[in-house]
Amino acid sequence: MKFSELVARLKAAEHSLILNAACDPHLTGVKPLEDAQAETLSYIEGEKFAAQVNTTAASALILPLDQALQTQATDRQIAWIATREPRLLFAQAIALFYQPFRPAPGIHPTAVIDPSVQLGENAAIGAHVVIQAGVILGNNLCIHPNVVIYPGVTIGDRTLLHANCVIQERTQIGSDCVIHSGAVIGSEGFGFVPIPEGWLKMEQSGYVVLEDGVEVGCNSTIDRPAVGETRIERNTKLDNLVQIGHGSKVGKNCALAAQVGLAGGAQLGDRVILGGQVGVANHSHIGDGVQAGAQAGIHGTVAPGTVVLGTPAVPYKLYLKASAIYSRLPEMHRALKQIQKQLGLGQ
Amino acid sequence: MKFSELVARLKAAEHSLILNAACDPHLTGVKPLEDAQAETLSYIEGEKFAAQVNTTAASALILPLDQALQTQATDRQIAWIATREPRLLFAQAIALFYQPFRPAPGIHPTAVIDPSVQLGENAAIGAHVVIQAGVILGNNLCIHPNVVIYPGVTIGDRTLLHANCVIQERTQIGSDCVIHSGAVIGSEGFGFVPIPEGWLKMEQSGYVVLEDGVEVGCNSTIDRPAVGETRIERNTKLDNLVQIGHGSKVGKNCALAAQVGLAGGAQLGDRVILGGQVGVANHSHIGDGVQAGAQAGIHGTVAPGTVVLGTPAVPYKLYLKASAIYSRLPEMHRALKQIQKQLGLGQ
Amino acid sequence: MKFSELVARLKAAEHSLILNAACDPHLTGVKPLEDAQAETLSYIEGEKFAAQVNTTAASALILPLDQALQTQATDRQIAWIATREPRLLFAQAIALFYQPFRPAPGIHPTAVIDPSVQLGENAAIGAHVVIQAGVILGNNLCIHPNVVIYPGVTIGDRTLLHANCVIQERTQIGSDCVIHSGAVIGSEGFGFVPIPEGWLKMEQSGYVVLEDGVEVGCNSTIDRPAVGETRIERNTKLDNLVQIGHGSKVGKNCALAAQVGLAGGAQLGDRVILGGQVGVANHSHIGDGVQAGAQAGIHGTVAPGTVVLGTPAVPYKLYLKASAIYSRLPEMHRALKQIQKQLGLGQ
Repeated sequence: MKFSELVARLKAAEHSLILNAACDPHLTGVKPLEDAQAETLSYIEGEKFAAQVNTTAASALILPLDQALQTQATDRQIAWIATREPRLLFAQAIALFYQPFRPAPGIHPTAVIDPSVQLGENAAIGAHVVIQAGVILGNNLCIHPNVVIYPGVTIGDRTLLHANCVIQERTQIGSDCVIHSGAVIGSEGFGFVPIPEGWLKMEQSGYVVLEDGVEVGCNSTIDRPAVGETRIERNTKLDNLVQIGHGSKVGKNCALAAQVGLAGGAQLGDRVILGGQVGVANHSHIGDGVQAGAQAGIHGTVAPGTVVLGTPAVPYKLYLKASAIYSRLPEMHRALKQIQKQLGLGQ
Repeated sequence: MKFSELVARLKAAEHSLILNAACDPHLTGVKPLEDAQAETLSYIEGEKFAAQVNTTAASALILPLDQALQTQATDRQIAWIATREPRLLFAQAIALFYQPFRPAPGIHPTAVIDPSVQLGENAAIGAHVVIQAGVILGNNLCIHPNVVIYPGVTIGDRTLLHANCVIQERTQIGSDCVIHSGAVIGSEGFGFVPIPEGWLKMEQSGYVVLEDGVEVGCNSTIDRPAVGETRIERNTKLDNLVQIGHGSKVGKNCALAAQVGLAGGAQLGDRVILGGQVGVANHSHIGDGVQAGAQAGIHGTVAPGTVVLGTPAVPYKLYLKASAIYSRLPEMHRALKQIQKQLGLGQ
Repeated sequence: MKFSELVARLKAAEHSLILNAACDPHLTGVKPLEDAQAETLSYIEGEKFAAQVNTTAASALILPLDQALQTQATDRQIAWIATREPRLLFAQAIALFYQPFRPAPGIHPTAVIDPSVQLGENAAIGAHVVIQAGVILGNNLCIHPNVVIYPGVTIGDRTLLHANCVIQERTQIGSDCVIHSGAVIGSEGFGFVPIPEGWLKMEQSGYVVLEDGVEVGCNSTIDRPAVGETRIERNTKLDNLVQIGHGSKVGKNCALAAQVGLAGGAQLGDRVILGGQVGVANHSHIGDGVQAGAQAGIHGTVAPGTVVLGTPAVPYKLYLKASAIYSRLPEMHRALKQIQKQLGLGQ
């Protein structure tokens, strides 16, 4: 497609300006900046990539609103479009060149589907899928091979289940969700009561709810509680290897990076963003819009809008100051000893 | 069931006292306190939930031995039973209303079972299960769909394997175990010896033993060692996404929360409790009854009965004091500089 | 096999010296030191295991170059061979007694293989495997049951895929790789752009490359990027539950222990060793030969050859000093207050 045609099809184009009208290359694909070739489009997020504008072989670029970068690109006869949000525009551009693999509708003959299952229209159900009694499926589902669905599950329209994921009993999954390979949704919460002989298993009679637009990463696990529900609200995205303990609630539009763990009963508000390997203790309350840096350990209550880091998690700025001093502890310790000596203070 | 009937069926009832004999509601289920409706039973663990006694719609409650809470409930005409361990009694109550899904005995025609396998009685073996040569299975097993069992595995009676777990060669699993979906037991330990060309793979000729009553969470991994065994002793419970390195030994009645990782050769005593995301280094020795808070990093030896926190893990009380001061480091650093200046010391 | 025959077959034998020529026991297997019986071989890595030479029941030992240990063994009539690298020699010895389970070549009739797949020679393809359109497979592959391969994947010779792993679209896997059970390779990177309504999904049009000799642990996940590739170079080994974010590059001969997480775009050099649960932030650059201790949190740039620890990661020696003082923070804080008081300084 011509660069000009691509620009016309980007939804954010009205906020942007185009230069190099004379230069309108044919584009065959999208590439990262360092690997781009002729006839490919790439993008630049900010100033620190400026040097690469001088070396990239891309024929077209999405640029930030930065005059210098635009001049550099023009000088090199690179077609470009500038915008406040280059990454957003690039996401749109990718979708013009690429669609992920989707199997055609149809039910593979090796799938084992209980006669009581309510199948929607146009489902694509792969080889060796197992769907058990009482499951209710929406329209236009895509269920990849070797998925197992336990009894009593409901799934909305257009939801996508990747190969080898498992959906356990009574889970409710909304529409437009994506469950990645190896994820396990609705399994028994880790509920054991100490008794003299060891542990009494608390049966987990509750269930998991994923609202519309939720995405669950590969090999992530979301447990159901003893009573009540575990709920992930609309449009929240979980990365790979995330653990959601029984009875947790995650609000709308959150993003939890890989290897995050929520202990049982954690409550997250809307638009919460947790970095990789963050841990959240039992029954914590995390307010709307909270952000936590990678590996933070959170317990108790975090006020809405706070940015936290560290274990135990403290406000971001405080953590940066304290952690900067951490490496000076040996020096501080020596200084203190010297002062004590000088003042005749002992220990 | 009537409340009075429920009370009669709870095993701990002899330690408890009942009030509101006049009030004996019909109960249809169990619910969390905040979602409880009429005709449901809920429970209260301690004082901090006191306010909810005044608002819950539950018809019956399990209460702690707290006079004030009991009076509140009586005043609201809620039937109740009081006990030292409300959570234990509630676990028993759930089991009166709820039984988890168990498929009926029988072998699904799509299961692929080697002729040399010794099948016990009454097994439920799901669709697309694969059981390889020389496997010996006990009675009353339940193997959900898409489970794969490698050669030479033995499994005791009444053990439950959830969908899509994998049991690799020579693993020995006891009776009354539960292996959750996606768990992998008996895979090769991470054994590589550095050589000039990179890494020499050390073949892992050992095996994994899970004693009776062990539970392994979803997507957890337990590796076999180069020689000898990796062993999880009786009644120990592992949560989701736990890693047990090759040659580790975990004692009896332990509980390891989600995302815990034990490096190779770690040795844990009995009744050890590790919080979420705890890491244990190679060849550590953790004594009986040790407890470690979430995200702790343990190496070396931990004395029996110790409660530890932090990385590197230190005794609980010390950690609380030190971590409280952590955020005051910038302030301490400033104070120290001021003192040094005043005394004409140092930098 | 006789001890003398074993010694003759060990490749490193020329660097070693043998004693006890008179003593040449028959050996039936390899065992860990503490469980060794008569007719078994074990090994000792260093001085700290010296006491066990006096108690082991092993008939033969691989020893370090330590005269005292050798004398102890000779005195107990244990056959032994001494070497600079006992673990390397023991790895070779194990391989003389043990070969891991490999299914015989052949394609199980329940495997579902698209007619367009190019199958190599001598493949062993297990029950319920699914291989989709356009996949190209090398010779002597071993694919265990319930593996799913999405369209457009290529796999080299002698590569081994364990049960229930998933290889997603366009992944390129080299020769002599091992993918362990439950691993997911080539899934969509966690790419979402914030928009007023929540998150816009960035399609992940890239792919994953695993070069020859790469090993990926159980339930590990390696994501493909929006554009370009995620690459793991030759002979790099990943343990279980490792997360490799989209667009990362891991160099040659690295070893990443269990539960390590690399955020998107992390760049690792060659021979990097990361301990368990290490986290690496977005777009970090880690030089050749860097080693990071367990649970380290790395961001930014780490110079080649550095050994780091802690979060945020600092050089190893500094971390040891600083963390040793961490527990003395309460004491330092008290001392500081006392000094301030004495000097009449406020806070």
